[in-house]
Amino acid sequence: MAFDDLELPSVNAKDVVGGSATYSAFAASAFAEVRLVAVVGSDFPDATIAALRARGIDTDGIEHAEGRTFRWAGRYDADLVHRTTLDTQLNVFASFAPKIPDAYRDTPIVLLGNIHPALQLEVVEQVRRPRIVIADTMNFWISGEPALVDSMLKRIDTLVINDEEARQLSGHHNIRRAAKAILGRGPKRLIIKRGEHGALLFDSEGIFAAPGFPLEDVVDPTGAGDAFAGGFVGYLAGQAELSPLVLRRAMLYATATASFCVEAVGTARVATITKSDIAERVTSIRALYEFGAATM
Amino acid sequence: MAFDDLELPSVNAKDVVGGSATYSAFAASAFAEVRLVAVVGSDFPDATIAALRARGIDTDGIEHAEGRTFRWAGRYDADLVHRTTLDTQLNVFASFAPKIPDAYRDTPIVLLGNIHPALQLEVVEQVRRPRIVIADTMNFWISGEPALVDSMLKRIDTLVINDEEARQLSGHHNIRRAAKAILGRGPKRLIIKRGEHGALLFDSEGIFAAPGFPLEDVVDPTGAGDAFAGGFVGYLAGQAELSPLVLRRAMLYATATASFCVEAVGTARVATITKSDIAERVTSIRALYEFGAATM
Repeated sequence: MAFDDLELPSVNAKDVVGGSATYSAFAASAFAEVRLVAVVGSDFPDATIAALRARGIDTDGIEHAEGRTFRWAGRYDADLVHRTTLDTQLNVFASFAPKIPDAYRDTPIVLLGNIHPALQLEVVEQVRRPRIVIADTMNFWISGEPALVDSMLKRIDTLVINDEEARQLSGHHNIRRAAKAILGRGPKRLIIKRGEHGALLFDSEGIFAAPGFPLEDVVDPTGAGDAFAGGFVGYLAGQAELSPLVLRRAMLYATATASFCVEAVGTARVATITKSDIAERVTSIRALYEFGAATM
Repeated sequence: MAFDDLELPSVNAKDVVGGSATYSAFAASAFAEVRLVAVVGSDFPDATIAALRARGIDTDGIEHAEGRTFRWAGRYDADLVHRTTLDTQLNVFASFAPKIPDAYRDTPIVLLGNIHPALQLEVVEQVRRPRIVIADTMNFWISGEPALVDSMLKRIDTLVINDEEARQLSGHHNIRRAAKAILGRGPKRLIIKRGEHGALLFDSEGIFAAPGFPLEDVVDPTGAGDAFAGGFVGYLAGQAELSPLVLRRAMLYATATASFCVEAVGTARVATITKSDIAERVTSIRALYEFGAATM
């Protein structure tokens, strides 16, 4: 959980409540009861904790540490795709070691946010036979902790990364070769996020492509990937089985959830979306490729 | 029609027969009888003309001019997305004025390649009430001949450009706003090509997204956009009506055709593809987003 200073084409916003855990939790809470493990400093607003609770999110796993909350500052290009990190302050995050409350140990669906792979492994150790473990990671760990990233890959079911991270992790530029290489290192499934171009799921059934939803108003892409992951696990939580078909549907719900996230600054929109908002957008996304039987 | 010198990550190839007309004609000939209007110099190989004819392409519209054929030289980055033009020699293309043979004037489907918009307008003047006129253009004409590009937009049904061109033409970065602005300037339909990310069709029915087909071996992206346009018009040529549904199907056939094109250097692959090759790949593309009814 974090504060972000965002220089966006349309607005500059300071001290915006953010962080992967915040975005993912708000997103998943449209579908399911969420248990949130994260760390905040003494400067973190009670109002956000209250807003999370009001969405049915269990916040007992949030550690309140002495000191300041993690901070990130970034500037987005006019294209809202490229961004430059202006500042990162780890603050209380520097010494964070996730402690899974006893009441959380039987959580069936586990989303490992993008933290040190050693900490991701510790979280996996603390949960009891979940139905599915999904993890995110980033360039910093891929290059800095390759051995631990490899160990992490062996303990998870599904990796969710963006295309650049897939290329870096695999050493292949070609996305299909990259996916094959990564799947050979542990996870059963790989999701590659491609921003406005949607996302690809690679699994034993082949490839599934979720199209990006072309929005007229993109305000702030921050947290879109986390909202995607949150929408994905949230949708799965309500499903009796995690079949390839269900995973494919989850891709559309994830895409829809992320598309709401970018429509407002910070968590403003993702904090209020409902299951029916998301279902309605899934219908719009499906309409993107609707047509009759293709015959010559 | 052209010669290209291609610096590709996998190979350097000189004097490769290329050009928009060549790629589009080979692509469309998988589906339909093609009539080709272009100019070549005295250095252009008879073997290519013979290969075009062998595919059922009427080459009577090819003007054989004194001098050298158009030449382009370019270098592709390792990502096979970004490319740098190293050299352009207009040669016989500099004084090219397309003359539509009498036998071509009733051609029902007209694809205007990326040439000076004044010449595109002259071609439109020379054909008699076609069922559909589709045009390509590029940054050079958008910035250099805005008034003529505007006139051209009023005389065509469908514009096929890439995302950067759509942004430049409309002045909007957002792709949906860009599309709306362009559709307000004349064409009934806009196709925005997004390379490996597929293509979007904007029309009165809304938006259709054709996913890119993730290939394991991308060798040479040269001509992929032209093969896309050729596959698109080729598919349409066999259809009794040009309904929104048929146009959507054509997007998949276009995507499939382009995906073959990039698998070999130059026109090597597109010059040999068959309708059944393409239909088979359309099935693979459709499998990219197949799943049952999405229910909560």
